[in-house]
Amino acid sequence: MKRCKRVALIIIGNEVLEGDAVDTNGAYIGNKLSHIGMEIVFKTTVRDRIEEIKSSLKMALRKADTVILTGGLGPTRDDVTREAVSGFLKKKLKFHFKSFENIKSFFRRRGGEVPSICKRQAFLPAGAKALENRCGTAPGFLIKHRSKLIVVLPGPPREMKPMFEKVISLLKRHLRGSAVVLRRALRTYGIGESSIEEGLRDIKNKKGFEIGFQAHPGHVDIKLCVRAKNENLARKIIKRYERKIFSRFKNNIFSRDDRRLEEVVGLALKRKGLTLAIAESCSGGLVSNLITNVPGASNYFEGGVISYSNRLKRKILEVPGVFLKRYGAVSGPVAERMAAGIRNLARTDLGLGITGIAGPSGGTKKKPVGLVYIALASASGVKSKKFNFYGERIEIKERVALASLSMLLEYLSEKEKKCSTLNC
Amino acid sequence: MKRCKRVALIIIGNEVLEGDAVDTNGAYIGNKLSHIGMEIVFKTTVRDRIEEIKSSLKMALRKADTVILTGGLGPTRDDVTREAVSGFLKKKLKFHFKSFENIKSFFRRRGGEVPSICKRQAFLPAGAKALENRCGTAPGFLIKHRSKLIVVLPGPPREMKPMFEKVISLLKRHLRGSAVVLRRALRTYGIGESSIEEGLRDIKNKKGFEIGFQAHPGHVDIKLCVRAKNENLARKIIKRYERKIFSRFKNNIFSRDDRRLEEVVGLALKRKGLTLAIAESCSGGLVSNLITNVPGASNYFEGGVISYSNRLKRKILEVPGVFLKRYGAVSGPVAERMAAGIRNLARTDLGLGITGIAGPSGGTKKKPVGLVYIALASASGVKSKKFNFYGERIEIKERVALASLSMLLEYLSEKEKKCSTLNC
Repeated sequence: MKRCKRVALIIIGNEVLEGDAVDTNGAYIGNKLSHIGMEIVFKTTVRDRIEEIKSSLKMALRKADTVILTGGLGPTRDDVTREAVSGFLKKKLKFHFKSFENIKSFFRRRGGEVPSICKRQAFLPAGAKALENRCGTAPGFLIKHRSKLIVVLPGPPREMKPMFEKVISLLKRHLRGSAVVLRRALRTYGIGESSIEEGLRDIKNKKGFEIGFQAHPGHVDIKLCVRAKNENLARKIIKRYERKIFSRFKNNIFSRDDRRLEEVVGLALKRKGLTLAIAESCSGGLVSNLITNVPGASNYFEGGVISYSNRLKRKILEVPGVFLKRYGAVSGPVAERMAAGIRNLARTDLGLGITGIAGPSGGTKKKPVGLVYIALASASGVKSKKFNFYGERIEIKERVALASLSMLLEYLSEKEKKCSTLNC
Repeated sequence: MKRCKRVALIIIGNEVLEGDAVDTNGAYIGNKLSHIGMEIVFKTTVRDRIEEIKSSLKMALRKADTVILTGGLGPTRDDVTREAVSGFLKKKLKFHFKSFENIKSFFRRRGGEVPSICKRQAFLPAGAKALENRCGTAPGFLIKHRSKLIVVLPGPPREMKPMFEKVISLLKRHLRGSAVVLRRALRTYGIGESSIEEGLRDIKNKKGFEIGFQAHPGHVDIKLCVRAKNENLARKIIKRYERKIFSRFKNNIFSRDDRRLEEVVGLALKRKGLTLAIAESCSGGLVSNLITNVPGASNYFEGGVISYSNRLKRKILEVPGVFLKRYGAVSGPVAERMAAGIRNLARTDLGLGITGIAGPSGGTKKKPVGLVYIALASASGVKSKKFNFYGERIEIKERVALASLSMLLEYLSEKEKKCSTLNC
């Protein structure tokens, strides 16, 4: 197999085209490939139909050296990827004994027999190399076609991802010695995409270097891509650009390595040996959920209260009833009492209090949907901020979560140089 | 413009190919189109490069009557969709006064001036009809090309979606009088994809009718698609199949109209006039977050406690210290006390208690990662169930949430015929 830098990706599944499923495999595979310097030169999504799969495979093989297909390996009759690939290559499907053993042991671990329809998953085109599925039944497979490589993977991300690790290491081996591509995303908050671009107008694309910008809800990524003949050189170049950019936006960059805000907050809490508890109302548990998505969160997160009702605000968090009456549940003073209340109850260093109106109903002229107060209580007192978010209920919850995490990070960064990892 | 049933979709953006963003627009658009009986016959994803966009547009116009492009309309220099479309059609970009007024008023509402780089967003190919952007700056546009229609939309879903509503109503108008397509997903839980397929083996695809299956984490969809010459007929046919399937899986079908489990649980709580509170440990707020994603959740959800630490389990939920010592925090008795504790504290009809090990660390041989106890407390007592989930931390949290919601639904359905909406 020659050095195959050009990859084509074929996503298979009616559910993806009809919008019953969002394709996350494409992003996962694209990300992994781009980190080893391979480029997706063609990506298409097709139905579970033999003819469509065949014709996309034909097109893909014209454009790329490696073709990756995902989906359509399930047990049910609507899954036809095996048949399509075998038909295209004119290689018969053959029963693969070892794969069937894996399928049997998969069901055995769950205490059941193999359903008869799953047997067809053990058939692979003649000459294919099976890829074991540790998280499901359908094996994937690799098959060479002239000088090119065809990789077929199952659709469910849980099954595809571990299998793709193997594929990546295989592809990497064949890439050795060729040019190196390094990518980096400098993640910023508290500043808009256009202001960042204006501030970096003098940094231009040139051969071997690309700069791009990507706005997300709540943060903007500055993306760098360097292509050089070896890793050392690539690192040197990317570091030079990083320094330049960092010097201009040091108050906005919070991560340089794809870390999410909750991870950076978690790291900062850990580094400083501080603990946290959260009282949420309108965000309904989302902030705590994000915080606890990070492995090891129990080292700094004590817990939280979702005080959806006023009764719980009073009873658990000890928000005085007179506050609720005078200022209303959605107010700065109540957010502050929630923050202080949870800090007190959980005996943590920091307490976060969040109250607002997520909508779609419950808004008034004076207190519209999207009005949110977030308060942070620490040893040095309590402070609250007022926000006016826009969007639908779930979007508002997401914006509240990002604002809460940003507030935490701002507090945690006050004493230490932000993003000191840049120098590590 | 003729009746355009065949649609091609071009997703534009380096971030999508490189995996820095998951494309959700494709699913959204595919779903909306499939509900009006239009089919995506070609879908591809390309980089922000003029030549790539042009050549995909050429291919798309060969395959479809309507071509929809999303992405690459941003203010920064890496966004080149406008230039590509204008170049392909050989129509110069012209300054569109009204669109610039909209951009100005967008910034004015935020209390700022238009950044100079945003001006280019007001340029559209000559002859294009602008689509107003109510949630951002970049206008979309429609342009005819011979007998075909090209639709260009911004990439951020928040901006694309409301704009696409307009496009859909326009496309619908042109479809009037043609065949009707009806789709339905019967959503099941507590049963595997292969068992469902085996139970429905006699229901086969035929002209005008398709059946498909789709496994999600925690539930499986049975998908029906009927094409008929008018809506009445299509409804009649789909109802006949629905009845047949429902009679075989009435204990597993929980929704027939894309409703998520938390929505169905919310509806059932509302219908029965019951209230709920939740005590979570390993799920870290995810279950409460899902419950509160549903508009109107405050009608039945009082709140919750995330008792990550044992101290909070004892202090707020009154789990006896001796229980924690004797059985351990991850145990049936502790889950039950958490459920009863939160029910008592929040004075609700139902209390849910969840404790377990989400990993990756914290597991032992006796209590491995993935071990979870979920308890439900009601007027008739407390019951707990033990689960062994597999996967990574976030996956385990998701499975815990689905199991918790399923347990709730099972309880709520005991007294009433499940999915009575089928008859409405």
